[in-house]
Amino acid sequence: MREAGVTVLTVGVFAWSRIEPRPGARDFGWLDRALDLLHASGLRAFLATPTASPPPWLGHLRPETLPVDADGRRLGYGSRNQFCPSAPAYREHALALVEDLAARYASHPALAAWHAGNELGQVCWCDQSAAHFRRWLRARYGDLDALNEAWGTAVWSQGYGDWDEVLPPRRAPYVVNPAQRLDYRRFSSDALLEHYRAERAILRRHAPDVPVTTNLVHLWTVVDQWAFAAETDVVALDLYGDPEDPAAHVDTALGCDVARSLGGGRPWVLMEQAAGAVSWRTRNLPKRPGQVRLWSLQAVARGADAVCFFQWRASRAGAEKFHSAMLPHAGPGARVHREVAALGADLARLRAVAGARLDARVAIVLDWHSWWALEQAGHPRQDLRLADQLAAFYRPLWEAGIAVDFAHPEGDLARYALVVAPNLYLVTDAGAANLAARAAGGGTLLMGFFSGVVDEADRVRWPPAFRNVLGISMEEFHPLAEDEKLWCVSDALGRFEAGFWAEHLHAESAQAIAVIEAGDLAGVPAVLRNAHGRGAAWYVATRPEPAAMAALTRLVCAEAGVAAAAPAPPGVEAVRRGDVLFLLNHGEGEAVVALDGPHLDLLSGAARDGAVTLGRFGAAALRPERRLP
Amino acid sequence: MREAGVTVLTVGVFAWSRIEPRPGARDFGWLDRALDLLHASGLRAFLATPTASPPPWLGHLRPETLPVDADGRRLGYGSRNQFCPSAPAYREHALALVEDLAARYASHPALAAWHAGNELGQVCWCDQSAAHFRRWLRARYGDLDALNEAWGTAVWSQGYGDWDEVLPPRRAPYVVNPAQRLDYRRFSSDALLEHYRAERAILRRHAPDVPVTTNLVHLWTVVDQWAFAAETDVVALDLYGDPEDPAAHVDTALGCDVARSLGGGRPWVLMEQAAGAVSWRTRNLPKRPGQVRLWSLQAVARGADAVCFFQWRASRAGAEKFHSAMLPHAGPGARVHREVAALGADLARLRAVAGARLDARVAIVLDWHSWWALEQAGHPRQDLRLADQLAAFYRPLWEAGIAVDFAHPEGDLARYALVVAPNLYLVTDAGAANLAARAAGGGTLLMGFFSGVVDEADRVRWPPAFRNVLGISMEEFHPLAEDEKLWCVSDALGRFEAGFWAEHLHAESAQAIAVIEAGDLAGVPAVLRNAHGRGAAWYVATRPEPAAMAALTRLVCAEAGVAAAAPAPPGVEAVRRGDVLFLLNHGEGEAVVALDGPHLDLLSGAARDGAVTLGRFGAAALRPERRLP
Amino acid sequence: MREAGVTVLTVGVFAWSRIEPRPGARDFGWLDRALDLLHASGLRAFLATPTASPPPWLGHLRPETLPVDADGRRLGYGSRNQFCPSAPAYREHALALVEDLAARYASHPALAAWHAGNELGQVCWCDQSAAHFRRWLRARYGDLDALNEAWGTAVWSQGYGDWDEVLPPRRAPYVVNPAQRLDYRRFSSDALLEHYRAERAILRRHAPDVPVTTNLVHLWTVVDQWAFAAETDVVALDLYGDPEDPAAHVDTALGCDVARSLGGGRPWVLMEQAAGAVSWRTRNLPKRPGQVRLWSLQAVARGADAVCFFQWRASRAGAEKFHSAMLPHAGPGARVHREVAALGADLARLRAVAGARLDARVAIVLDWHSWWALEQAGHPRQDLRLADQLAAFYRPLWEAGIAVDFAHPEGDLARYALVVAPNLYLVTDAGAANLAARAAGGGTLLMGFFSGVVDEADRVRWPPAFRNVLGISMEEFHPLAEDEKLWCVSDALGRFEAGFWAEHLHAESAQAIAVIEAGDLAGVPAVLRNAHGRGAAWYVATRPEPAAMAALTRLVCAEAGVAAAAPAPPGVEAVRRGDVLFLLNHGEGEAVVALDGPHLDLLSGAARDGAVTLGRFGAAALRPERRLP
Repeated sequence: MREAGVTVLTVGVFAWSRIEPRPGARDFGWLDRALDLLHASGLRAFLATPTASPPPWLGHLRPETLPVDADGRRLGYGSRNQFCPSAPAYREHALALVEDLAARYASHPALAAWHAGNELGQVCWCDQSAAHFRRWLRARYGDLDALNEAWGTAVWSQGYGDWDEVLPPRRAPYVVNPAQRLDYRRFSSDALLEHYRAERAILRRHAPDVPVTTNLVHLWTVVDQWAFAAETDVVALDLYGDPEDPAAHVDTALGCDVARSLGGGRPWVLMEQAAGAVSWRTRNLPKRPGQVRLWSLQAVARGADAVCFFQWRASRAGAEKFHSAMLPHAGPGARVHREVAALGADLARLRAVAGARLDARVAIVLDWHSWWALEQAGHPRQDLRLADQLAAFYRPLWEAGIAVDFAHPEGDLARYALVVAPNLYLVTDAGAANLAARAAGGGTLLMGFFSGVVDEADRVRWPPAFRNVLGISMEEFHPLAEDEKLWCVSDALGRFEAGFWAEHLHAESAQAIAVIEAGDLAGVPAVLRNAHGRGAAWYVATRPEPAAMAALTRLVCAEAGVAAAAPAPPGVEAVRRGDVLFLLNHGEGEAVVALDGPHLDLLSGAARDGAVTLGRFGAAALRPERRLP
Repeated sequence: MREAGVTVLTVGVFAWSRIEPRPGARDFGWLDRALDLLHASGLRAFLATPTASPPPWLGHLRPETLPVDADGRRLGYGSRNQFCPSAPAYREHALALVEDLAARYASHPALAAWHAGNELGQVCWCDQSAAHFRRWLRARYGDLDALNEAWGTAVWSQGYGDWDEVLPPRRAPYVVNPAQRLDYRRFSSDALLEHYRAERAILRRHAPDVPVTTNLVHLWTVVDQWAFAAETDVVALDLYGDPEDPAAHVDTALGCDVARSLGGGRPWVLMEQAAGAVSWRTRNLPKRPGQVRLWSLQAVARGADAVCFFQWRASRAGAEKFHSAMLPHAGPGARVHREVAALGADLARLRAVAGARLDARVAIVLDWHSWWALEQAGHPRQDLRLADQLAAFYRPLWEAGIAVDFAHPEGDLARYALVVAPNLYLVTDAGAANLAARAAGGGTLLMGFFSGVVDEADRVRWPPAFRNVLGISMEEFHPLAEDEKLWCVSDALGRFEAGFWAEHLHAESAQAIAVIEAGDLAGVPAVLRNAHGRGAAWYVATRPEPAAMAALTRLVCAEAGVAAAAPAPPGVEAVRRGDVLFLLNHGEGEAVVALDGPHLDLLSGAARDGAVTLGRFGAAALRPERRLP
Repeated sequence: MREAGVTVLTVGVFAWSRIEPRPGARDFGWLDRALDLLHASGLRAFLATPTASPPPWLGHLRPETLPVDADGRRLGYGSRNQFCPSAPAYREHALALVEDLAARYASHPALAAWHAGNELGQVCWCDQSAAHFRRWLRARYGDLDALNEAWGTAVWSQGYGDWDEVLPPRRAPYVVNPAQRLDYRRFSSDALLEHYRAERAILRRHAPDVPVTTNLVHLWTVVDQWAFAAETDVVALDLYGDPEDPAAHVDTALGCDVARSLGGGRPWVLMEQAAGAVSWRTRNLPKRPGQVRLWSLQAVARGADAVCFFQWRASRAGAEKFHSAMLPHAGPGARVHREVAALGADLARLRAVAGARLDARVAIVLDWHSWWALEQAGHPRQDLRLADQLAAFYRPLWEAGIAVDFAHPEGDLARYALVVAPNLYLVTDAGAANLAARAAGGGTLLMGFFSGVVDEADRVRWPPAFRNVLGISMEEFHPLAEDEKLWCVSDALGRFEAGFWAEHLHAESAQAIAVIEAGDLAGVPAVLRNAHGRGAAWYVATRPEPAAMAALTRLVCAEAGVAAAAPAPPGVEAVRRGDVLFLLNHGEGEAVVALDGPHLDLLSGAARDGAVTLGRFGAAALRPERRLP
């Protein structure tokens, strides 16, 4: 590990059955030795509470700790994650263990931070969860009248007359009430958060100054990551770009930006990535030579102060034995290990970057509650996915080299010249006012279709929330047929193709930027711009082809006065963190990037001026040097 | 509503929890006010029994009322339809409510008809259903010997020695006995019908002169619609053509013809259609401008005396909030509402048509029992669907402008010159004799492949039932490989391609009309004609390409002496109801239709002679005028 | 039957409810009459124990005999196979019945052999199975420490502290421990085998000299067919080639070779095949004219001494009523029956072949344990199927007319010049040594990718087991992207395309035969040859296109000195059994095969010299004749 430049390790995830092999037993000896050895070797630990995978004895003795799915099937052990976050017996056993772990290691010199649980995301539908859900609903709504109103139970004879009647949205003969389902997603996220907070309270009591975190998973929808991030001392992300996807590096860039933004711009920890292939996709391609370095540097460029891997050494047994590792089965001579070890040296050269922040003047609005609501059944089309909308708006910004934060719709947007909402199906009054205020205050708002449609109880708002700021009136959503394409005409964007979705809307104060050329919607605007207060709001009522999205992005950024970190050729990612300009070449060939003055490449140690040449998958981390007079 | 020409409303579907918010409570106040207001406004009501969606309290207090699926999972509430039609507790609560509803409103002046339940179709597999199934089987078979014989339980060691052993066809390790499954479909339909009849008995006791109906769903297979229609005073149909399907108007025409035929030709009620998009398909496209009028007029042309919509006003909440409405979220200014309101005026102009009948000389044979049997597992191919066969034979008749009824195989066929059986896999002796008699009596029979194969217990008949009337002997069914095409040669039909299915059969008295050109079946007839008594029977042993089906249809219709309602260009539907000729242009462009004399267009009020020009999606309802001498 | 040349019938499969219509009752009268009639007619019986399908009364009275699936759902009766092999109540009832059956018929003159059960393959997950699994595990591992070590329970906190905690790998929140799943497959196979042995013990006690068998299913993975075959007196195979598959005859050839090899080369019984179509595929095409004869002769050519069919007469009722039969619904005049009857005569002409053996000098390694392990989740790609690998290596050998046996990896390989392991993911130390010894001893080994990767507990071996014999070092598995193709260059094989899989490996002592041309793996060997002891080992690290596999096969066979049974044109299968050369023309057209001397065609009775001409789907069985001087 020292040779590979490792400085910190996550220890103890899934170690419950090793620490407590029988109910109430404690075997800390092996962990004592491990932590002492780390300390003696100059390494530090993210010490995990092992509560994400209870041992078989717990499921055997207390089957009510095992989760139940929406069909009523109780799931077994033999895998991992088999717990109900609402089960008192689970929580008692888990917290007792955390108590003893915290007491024992709170002062251990190797302890760098606590890592509570792991990829928290278990949802349960059992009767204990039902009771917990009812308590949660009472706190949210106060009385049943309010719940009946919020859930719209007048529809389909669903009125509740007694709290005991209220249940999780279990399997039913037909579509279950969408507000009930939405609240169950909220509750499930909160139930996990409640348990996380209980663990954290114990850890903090024993070690008030040691940071606590838990690892979030890139674009997972199970928990509200804003809520979790607010309860962590540092955001930790698990990010597994897919080497089979030619655009994986854009997706990972987005993940890094989300992680940084969840922490309010503070440095974050890339807690898990793969040294090579994972083992859970249909096809698990290795990372290509150089990609592990390039994608790790991307995380640093985008704000990470720690770059970790799952896992150090490949296991011989178990469900993940073909998951890559820093030290693979093939040993230290393998390419993967050599690249990882070289990365360790690279990261050491970038220590000066630690702590530095990015300066983004664009924010993309992201809200898990809207996401949950958007992807429910019964919508104009059932295959509208937020991830697709995020990618459609993020990618042209990435290609243009423009730094992007993510923001909660009710977050502080004041520092952003451009606010992008690829989709905001559900929006609270406060969120809607917040976005409108940014435009009114001089910002530019760029919004995708089917936004502002429902309130926080998934009840239709009509007119939709952004009518005034967008200067449009909505008449009807108009999903397109399979493979149907519309041609749009536009002076500003050229003639372009669009698909998937359209809207029968009317420009009120807005100006049509692009108009549908023919068909039933001939003449209906597809892209609009509305001057609003001191700013403007743009609306994209369809899914334009990528070239049109790129053109639109250029136009909107120009209006907002937002510019690239640095000019760079296609495939080269340019990101400025603090005063260091990262250039990352994701292309197959060499790329030459012009520089605006002399720089020192922290990675190579070489001085660069005029231009820098990046090899295939090459990178530079350039600190401006003062030019001698 | 008055402005939109509305005259009747369905009220109270799914209102159980509003009427009985707690067990035994009754809250009729809101319904009193609603019905009084309707009456005061000159509107009338189809008053629904709200029994299709029990309130949460019933499932909570009496979980045995909740349905169980074939896997043994009890389904929950929170959606709708969550009842077991065989559960005594469900039936008691439902009928007590119907009793009070009927007593209260039997004499209300706004009451036009009763609407019992809604889209009855819930199937349950619980132990109460099992006991009910056994009672039903005892009544059907008398003793176990008869059941064992009918079910063929000698196969696979399934002999029953005690009635208590007999169960619904629940999940098993491999394919379940097909006769048992078929009987369970019969039973499930009958169990729903039994409950419907129990509701109807109460309604009739309180209001002997008020018609009772329930809404059937277009081409649903859950219940035997002949059996239900026989118990309704007027047939009511829910018909949702898919705007994404370019042939949707042919499918809806078929639906209208089925509805009319279920009622023996009497006028029927289009109980539900969408004003625009639905919300339950993968992609829910709006109806195109003009289609809501055109498809509504199609229903009138094909015998409907009422054209209703689900729903008047779009809801803000619940699972169907994106389902279109006569009054959409966007309000009365929206295109959808304007079209609906204009339709109200159109319908008022067609009052003279009410009560008139269509004169069809072609019948298509349709039987739910055969349908259920046809689509079971273990057949020569598993993807043979009756709906595809119906469409294959219906479409060329539609295109030829020929009026079609649907008929039960044991129904009175005497008035039909041509009887078409696209598929009649299962046929009773009586049904087989009935079809044969029509041919013998001078009619023409046109039959599709894999017909007459089993008796009512799904036991193979060999030779198949129609050997004599068709004049063929069957040797072997011969499904074709994926994407395999056969060429057929025919003097009468030309050379054509066929696919999906073939049969190794031999012409006995039949004459080969088309013959397979090459391959293992070279020389085997694919289309045959057999003179039978005073008529003839045609057999189509494959799935010819559409052009060949059209040619065959022309030939057969010519032989049967069946002609179009009126000559019309492609895309224009011509239907004569009473003395009014409806011309409906489903094409994108203008169409000109020649007339055989002077007519009055009831829709426009204009006199037409020589020809009438229909715009895109345009329509005319032409009453012949006497030409002055 | 006599007219059709039938000599033996399987009787009594699934007859439990006829023999024991009520608990404890016995009705043997019908079976007495059937067997007496057979005997009187000169026919003999494979008499089945009817235990594969218990009657409804057993499931009703003793529901614990019904199987439970991995989701915990108890499956019902009404189908077949509904038993838990570990349920004491099932075993008691089944064995009591076997006892009485054996006692009654042990001396019946018609009895040719016992047929115990039918296609044994039921897996159960109930608590009785769990207890049985624990007993099996105790016998395998002795103590929990050994089990924990073998299962790698240190991963994911799965350590077991008490035997009672150990369960079948039931549904869990995520991937279940692969070693646990592998052991459950072993256990499930053994549980069925245990029951089979219990039945056999009774049968042997009553009739020590009557052979006992059970029918195995072609390429089924449920049971370890080596283990079952070792307990049968004659191997019996069910083999249903798919007439829709143009390469079905290669697949059936493989099936025949497996059946023969399972019995150590002894003659085997083709217990079930279809006379025409089956009824359980999506599309069930009939066999083409001549195919039933051709494929039956193929079985004889490849070692079968009996060729049977499921079924004699087509049933009118039940789930298989559209399955073809020797006597179809259409009766004895039908083509299917005429072909079957003619086959009877053909088989009579081949009596001289009975008992003769094939002489194969090539063995393909096949191991069910490796197969089970290979197809578990969590691998470099999830769609790697052993059947595809077997086909990829078997087909070029078939095309080259080379006789092939199958062999267990620990079996005696001494007589094989060439040993092929298309894939041997899991291998024991003994198996690995056995294969290596064959190469060292002068044989040629040809091995496919991803072999030798894990030990018998599915724990990674690194280096993989065959490093030395193959002369390579493995660095990383490298599945290819969807539709990705690699070009490989090779002096010996020409330039060829490959797909699906590659490996980042290094030649040590091996010589690269083909090398990847470009991309990240440019220069990495894709096919290698390593001299090893007195022999050599070849390795194929990718999936070459068929032409390259054919070229490689020629090369390897030439090196091993393995030659075709006889030269034959494409599509003609040449197999030598004893001294008879079978020529089977699977092609559509006539084929001419040169002969090396005078032969007598046993089928036609004609003398052949110089060449023989085979019609479409034609066959010859040629016995060399001494040429007169």
